[in-house]
Amino acid sequence: MNAIYPQPQALRQAAREGRFAEPTSGHAPGFLQANLMIVPKAQAFDFLLFCQRNPKPCPLIEVLAAGATEPGCAPGANIATDIPGYRVYRDGELVEERDEVASLWREDYVSFLIGCSFSFEAAVAEAGIPLRHVVQGRNVAMYRTSIPCESAGPFSGEMVVSMRPIKSRDVAKVVEISGRFDVAHGAPVHIGNPAAIGIADLAKPDYGDAVSIKDDEVPIFWACGVTPQWVAQKSRLPVCITHAPGKMFVTDLKG
Amino acid sequence: MNAIYPQPQALRQAAREGRFAEPTSGHAPGFLQANLMIVPKAQAFDFLLFCQRNPKPCPLIEVLAAGATEPGCAPGANIATDIPGYRVYRDGELVEERDEVASLWREDYVSFLIGCSFSFEAAVAEAGIPLRHVVQGRNVAMYRTSIPCESAGPFSGEMVVSMRPIKSRDVAKVVEISGRFDVAHGAPVHIGNPAAIGIADLAKPDYGDAVSIKDDEVPIFWACGVTPQWVAQKSRLPVCITHAPGKMFVTDLKG
Repeated sequence: MNAIYPQPQALRQAAREGRFAEPTSGHAPGFLQANLMIVPKAQAFDFLLFCQRNPKPCPLIEVLAAGATEPGCAPGANIATDIPGYRVYRDGELVEERDEVASLWREDYVSFLIGCSFSFEAAVAEAGIPLRHVVQGRNVAMYRTSIPCESAGPFSGEMVVSMRPIKSRDVAKVVEISGRFDVAHGAPVHIGNPAAIGIADLAKPDYGDAVSIKDDEVPIFWACGVTPQWVAQKSRLPVCITHAPGKMFVTDLKG
Repeated sequence: MNAIYPQPQALRQAAREGRFAEPTSGHAPGFLQANLMIVPKAQAFDFLLFCQRNPKPCPLIEVLAAGATEPGCAPGANIATDIPGYRVYRDGELVEERDEVASLWREDYVSFLIGCSFSFEAAVAEAGIPLRHVVQGRNVAMYRTSIPCESAGPFSGEMVVSMRPIKSRDVAKVVEISGRFDVAHGAPVHIGNPAAIGIADLAKPDYGDAVSIKDDEVPIFWACGVTPQWVAQKSRLPVCITHAPGKMFVTDLKG
């Protein structure tokens, strides 16, 4: 895999200048990474309520004032340029993937930064438990499930999860470690049986890259910050902007 | 003091029928009690954001849809009638205290239920630590402080705290117990020195009733759900409705 950016500022600067367009997993270990969701002020109350009602997939790190682009969790950063990839949805359809959204910016855009499971990965690695997608330099595998979210206004749909294969002997340890990271989706939502949560084939993730699962490993599922993207699509929101899957906003906060 | 209502439903019914208009502290032990804040939909995003940015004074239990009066945390209840007392503020002025607000109801009213420190009092009492205002049948003493809240839109102002005198030997125990109740303001925000947080005279609370402090006791301060009332006043919100201090909405949730 490519060189690791140990510091958030350097990674954001590289993304801003178009020099870095990769998934952020494994970079800036120990710093909180965030999913981005931008909605117009007219939908902001309902989306904030959706987050409040679904804290596992949508743990809020910060909500910016309408029109603001500099988050308190990353002074000097620009939310509209410092992420390695953005997606623009209109009426629930993905219309564009681009490397900045500053040129589309509107004064009524409200930005939500939502915790990301990447944030606990450094802690898991430190405990001596390797994560396959990091080792293989891939994006984590993500799947739509049959687990319903609590609705809020127009926002309704099912939870998206990320999956990591873990050796049986390490499952309890990984649950304990991730459980300490509330702002990074906390403990897993499911362990072991993909069919029970509506996942037909682990080899075909809805987002990110498939990874192999070995005989002595169990697939572990965590609530994922891509959930609001999927829900916004299903809810046919007039417009919303998100990060591209796996390409997060890296904050200056220690996880 | 009067008879205790052990169950939330009976207390709410009595409040609805005008048979109970007292503070709710000490009633329905073990059940979560909630502060109420009702704002028009036009201010609902900013107020929800204020709660998200100030989780110690404003831990959210539930936010109802615009116009809705039946909370999920108390099926069958009516938020507009089942509290022993309400306050109506217009342009930041308290204009009325009344026993129901159903006759004032608007379809754009959004109700916020915010955790209350009463909820941990039963746990403290169970640990063998008496609470003076409960013993004396008074409302808990509440004070405005100099501790600034994080602003959100028009909402800005200082934290209101509740105070309980606790014997020195029990202080650590009370911190530990209340720290487990995130939704009830969690651990204290200050211990021991009222002047340090802008309180000039403990004998003159801004809300509720003064209680005596004995020689071997320390005043302990918790973030208080009256904070949004004070902030709405200071922010001269066009209209908002709250519970009357000490008179809470009692939910069916176990604390």
